[in-house]
Amino acid sequence: LQNFSSGKSIAMIILFGVFVRYNEESDTRWIEHRRRKNISTNLENDFYYRYPSFQDVHVMIFVGFGFLMTFLKRYSFGGVGFNFLIAAFGIQWALLMQGWFHYLDDDGKIKIGVENLINADFCVAGCLIAYGACLGKVSPVQLMVLTLFGVTLFAVEEYIILELLHAKDPGGSMVIHTFGAYYGLTISWVLYRPMLSQSKHLQGSVYHSDVFAMIGTLFLWMYWPSFNSAIADHGDGQHRAVINTYLALAASVLTTFAISSISQKHGKLDMVHIQNATLAGGVAMGTASEFMITPYGSLIVGFCSSIISTFGYIFLTPFMEKTLKIQDTCGIHNLHAMPGVIGGIVGAITAASASESVYGQEGLINTFDFKEAVANRTANIQGGYQAAGLFVAIAFGLVGGALVGGILKLPIWGDPADANCFDDEVYWEVPEDEDENMLSSHPNMNHARGILKSLDIKLKSSCS
Amino acid sequence: LQNFSSGKSIAMIILFGVFVRYNEESDTRWIEHRRRKNISTNLENDFYYRYPSFQDVHVMIFVGFGFLMTFLKRYSFGGVGFNFLIAAFGIQWALLMQGWFHYLDDDGKIKIGVENLINADFCVAGCLIAYGACLGKVSPVQLMVLTLFGVTLFAVEEYIILELLHAKDPGGSMVIHTFGAYYGLTISWVLYRPMLSQSKHLQGSVYHSDVFAMIGTLFLWMYWPSFNSAIADHGDGQHRAVINTYLALAASVLTTFAISSISQKHGKLDMVHIQNATLAGGVAMGTASEFMITPYGSLIVGFCSSIISTFGYIFLTPFMEKTLKIQDTCGIHNLHAMPGVIGGIVGAITAASASESVYGQEGLINTFDFKEAVANRTANIQGGYQAAGLFVAIAFGLVGGALVGGILKLPIWGDPADANCFDDEVYWEVPEDEDENMLSSHPNMNHARGILKSLDIKLKSSCS
Amino acid sequence: LQNFSSGKSIAMIILFGVFVRYNEESDTRWIEHRRRKNISTNLENDFYYRYPSFQDVHVMIFVGFGFLMTFLKRYSFGGVGFNFLIAAFGIQWALLMQGWFHYLDDDGKIKIGVENLINADFCVAGCLIAYGACLGKVSPVQLMVLTLFGVTLFAVEEYIILELLHAKDPGGSMVIHTFGAYYGLTISWVLYRPMLSQSKHLQGSVYHSDVFAMIGTLFLWMYWPSFNSAIADHGDGQHRAVINTYLALAASVLTTFAISSISQKHGKLDMVHIQNATLAGGVAMGTASEFMITPYGSLIVGFCSSIISTFGYIFLTPFMEKTLKIQDTCGIHNLHAMPGVIGGIVGAITAASASESVYGQEGLINTFDFKEAVANRTANIQGGYQAAGLFVAIAFGLVGGALVGGILKLPIWGDPADANCFDDEVYWEVPEDEDENMLSSHPNMNHARGILKSLDIKLKSSCS
Repeated sequence: LQNFSSGKSIAMIILFGVFVRYNEESDTRWIEHRRRKNISTNLENDFYYRYPSFQDVHVMIFVGFGFLMTFLKRYSFGGVGFNFLIAAFGIQWALLMQGWFHYLDDDGKIKIGVENLINADFCVAGCLIAYGACLGKVSPVQLMVLTLFGVTLFAVEEYIILELLHAKDPGGSMVIHTFGAYYGLTISWVLYRPMLSQSKHLQGSVYHSDVFAMIGTLFLWMYWPSFNSAIADHGDGQHRAVINTYLALAASVLTTFAISSISQKHGKLDMVHIQNATLAGGVAMGTASEFMITPYGSLIVGFCSSIISTFGYIFLTPFMEKTLKIQDTCGIHNLHAMPGVIGGIVGAITAASASESVYGQEGLINTFDFKEAVANRTANIQGGYQAAGLFVAIAFGLVGGALVGGILKLPIWGDPADANCFDDEVYWEVPEDEDENMLSSHPNMNHARGILKSLDIKLKSSCS
Repeated sequence: LQNFSSGKSIAMIILFGVFVRYNEESDTRWIEHRRRKNISTNLENDFYYRYPSFQDVHVMIFVGFGFLMTFLKRYSFGGVGFNFLIAAFGIQWALLMQGWFHYLDDDGKIKIGVENLINADFCVAGCLIAYGACLGKVSPVQLMVLTLFGVTLFAVEEYIILELLHAKDPGGSMVIHTFGAYYGLTISWVLYRPMLSQSKHLQGSVYHSDVFAMIGTLFLWMYWPSFNSAIADHGDGQHRAVINTYLALAASVLTTFAISSISQKHGKLDMVHIQNATLAGGVAMGTASEFMITPYGSLIVGFCSSIISTFGYIFLTPFMEKTLKIQDTCGIHNLHAMPGVIGGIVGAITAASASESVYGQEGLINTFDFKEAVANRTANIQGGYQAAGLFVAIAFGLVGGALVGGILKLPIWGDPADANCFDDEVYWEVPEDEDENMLSSHPNMNHARGILKSLDIKLKSSCS
Repeated sequence: LQNFSSGKSIAMIILFGVFVRYNEESDTRWIEHRRRKNISTNLENDFYYRYPSFQDVHVMIFVGFGFLMTFLKRYSFGGVGFNFLIAAFGIQWALLMQGWFHYLDDDGKIKIGVENLINADFCVAGCLIAYGACLGKVSPVQLMVLTLFGVTLFAVEEYIILELLHAKDPGGSMVIHTFGAYYGLTISWVLYRPMLSQSKHLQGSVYHSDVFAMIGTLFLWMYWPSFNSAIADHGDGQHRAVINTYLALAASVLTTFAISSISQKHGKLDMVHIQNATLAGGVAMGTASEFMITPYGSLIVGFCSSIISTFGYIFLTPFMEKTLKIQDTCGIHNLHAMPGVIGGIVGAITAASASESVYGQEGLINTFDFKEAVANRTANIQGGYQAAGLFVAIAFGLVGGALVGGILKLPIWGDPADANCFDDEVYWEVPEDEDENMLSSHPNMNHARGILKSLDIKLKSSCS
């Protein structure tokens, strides 16, 4: 890990030195830029449009994803800690990769501003989703490799989907969730561990680790409207994306509780469902968030996606592990893959059925950016390109996952033995546990030991 | 739960389909609207005025209220989980109810934007407060019923107080806190359980559940300035509401620590006080947050409300349980009812004493909206209407609570037995606890068992 | 504590009554002010530029610092609770002290707005850093005294550094971190406890307390860009400060993981490093955040500061405790003192090397405020003043800490005995622990007791 990380650090410094500069909104020459462009106020700096959303996205990446993965009884350090490591590494690499594909200026430099920071966080989200499938079974070095290639693949598929196909995907149902999930699932399939049951006793949660995971769930749930609106159009675009996502998420919660209580014996609720399937609506609203999907359309999306997601946890995850040999620790197939695909399909249908009577003439052009090279595209055709984007995302996930899985299978990365999976002891200095201390020093225990001793003595004397 | 929730989900979809549409700021025709109204920049979209505050309020509802209720040793799932369920259900129902009363357009549709989302969160807060009194003693279905009626009552009393009486209450001391608290307390009184002491051993906290509850406390405390300013007037209104609330809250903390250390033997602090009474200043500043109450006025409000709140926890809660037969799990009488009433009174007095010399002529008109139907109202008369609003809130809480309590007393809702109150086992799949596992498998324990066995054998042989 | 706190509360009310008023942006006369100054929109109210950043800073102060200090196994109440107390007290006192030095209007009143709230939070951060060195070893009254004097000293050194020397320090590498750290370390040195090893068994963490501390770490890490940009210049200033801090922090994480895994036997990671040294980049970027330090410059700052910080935890902290007699509970020397000094030096160098070719003519003037009294200052000379600022901060920390440490050494403050350090029992009502309950009531234990009893009886009969 040390060589890998420090090597990366230095490589980053050099690459940033060669390529990365401030853009005109974060440069001290902004005042000259303002005068040139006749911008009347500092508030028109994109910073003020996007920074609050950026901070929410940032919280989702580090606290949301991080704490969602603390649910295992003895892998909370690894869940939140390695999430921290690979996200912090990934955002640097993403600034470069996305910069080369999207933001390269005439002078060969990448000019960055707040939108780049959001996109870097988005890019990293794909890798964190993939981490969810591998949680507890891979070494930190493997995670760094997974992230290195994951970010690279992401930048390419994103370029194809958003730039070449000109599909819309502001919240990344396809680009982030579908890609990330299939990338992680394929890696997990390649790294299949037939003897994983050796660490079965560590695969569950304890009471307080489930409460920690709820911190992750709630911050993801609350800030998802910011996620789906962070890079949406100024004005009505961001506004509508927030409303749609808020409604889809609200519907998901209600549905998840209903299905979860059906599924269990005695109608009890399962924390795994509540922690995950309540978020399905946010995933499924990623592509269509900016569209005129209508408020009730958003509710329907949230309703359907969380039904499928919850049933996935109940039926599909065990089936996939047994039959398809895919061990999916966090159930990302249910939270990201299926709702992501739903999101892509919803996006394609909504786009295809867009009309001037609903959007207004200018509104239609603005929403779908029917300008320049695609000025003549119709909504119908846009729907086809949206669908094509979904296939690109799936293909990149499967093929990329297979390749990277193959690399990660090499026996050089220090992955844990089957019996040591889901155990922080392998990579962390874990504090001696309070319970053990207390047990050893507990008065009752001492008392018991005292009696035993005296009994033993009496016994010896009585038997002699 | 399942029938109830899925029925609700489908009803919501239909009602939203019939009634709810985007407003002109979240519709793709915003660009046409801008041109018509001569709005120069996208930033004038209300989204940019209110979205950061909305997100803070959202965190308060889901993480703030949710984690505040995790303090019980074995009801953390129920605290944060059922809070999640009823808040997510409530905001959908609130969008409809508040929409019918406040936002119905000429075409019979409810047009929603970010302000509606904030108001829906506010509306739900009233029901979450009521949940605090019933925590651990009701079933999730009862909570859904409590929320269904609570939101309905809220929309009506809010309409009467804000529209008919034209009282001001941006942070909801009256509309949210007073109403919600009396609603919950009355329900709890109707559902009185004489044998609740059967689950006495589960009514306390453990060390880490108290730390979890501090997450709730702090997010409520930090974001309360956003709560009281979220729907305040653009410009100085929001700005002043933040300052007043910030100061009242700061004063509350100091006072709570002082009173808490007086009250306990040996001057020790009580976590219950710190978790709750530190927030009293925010509650009590809800009505007057936008008024020119002055910075030191805000400090006085925070000072007084948290004194009363802390003493409430020490003296009133035990008294109410014993004498008035009101079992108030979270002590909402101390945190919401009394500070809410204080807030209403402070609001009435501050309004009545407002003058043009302090507010400026335009400022007075803007702050109290002395326009159109109430153009001729004076500050003095406004004070009277504020006081009237307080009585409406109390009356709705008491009468509504009695009615809904009666409904919830019907033996059809699956509420827990007295001995099973405050226990997640009733409604949740609870993971087997680490401690028990460890105890059974602990070397010392095995050692003890081993010695016992050998002693037993020796004993038998020696006695034979 | 009670006399102290309630006395303070009343003193605050009086002082606020005499001195503190709303400024023109939070006063109802804002509408008149707008007309006078020809301000076209409410959005130009500073509230909309700074409120989102303020809320992030607020979270850092109360949740960030608070939860970072919950890592001790039995001092989580004290960590998060006393942090809450002194921060809430400190912000009131800071509004007054900073007001007298910076914001006094012609009429002898302090006019406050959102920028004052941010500055008050900043001021308190210095005292919270100092608390980190003393965590678990001082009484709440001592902390109040530490804060009372700390805020006072802060206001003076801030006045000297920012106003008299006209140094720039938007994120407070010097003013906040360097001062706060040396202030706390000197106090800790004066209060040296030679017999502290008596509470050695409480000085560590347990599994879940380390996870709680990660909440603090992550909220500090995520929101640090807001910290360093909250009072930066509107427009490009805030924008650039965010980018620089984001990059420095990302680099810190990578480096900390690398160094931490080198340092430990078996390459294991140490939670103490991850919780703290990952933040070093944010501290070190506090002075230069607004400067054109370039993206790769930011990475270098993050890289270097976290190397030094991590090595500090490994080598310096034990050395300081043994040789210099400085007991630094949270290792603030590694997280705040050294990175703060680095930040001051980086700021001086970056300022000294600023040029018109990089900043643009106007940009240079705006960034360094080369206006009015300092209109003729050059970048070179500015570098010298920046360095002078660093020395002022250190000097205030050392001298102030020695004085206040002397006061705190008086035997009147109720500090805990050596054996009771790091133990919440001293100041808090601590709930009886679940583990103990469970142990006493555990079937195995009862079984063991049963066998023992019957053995005892048999033995007695057999021996008689």
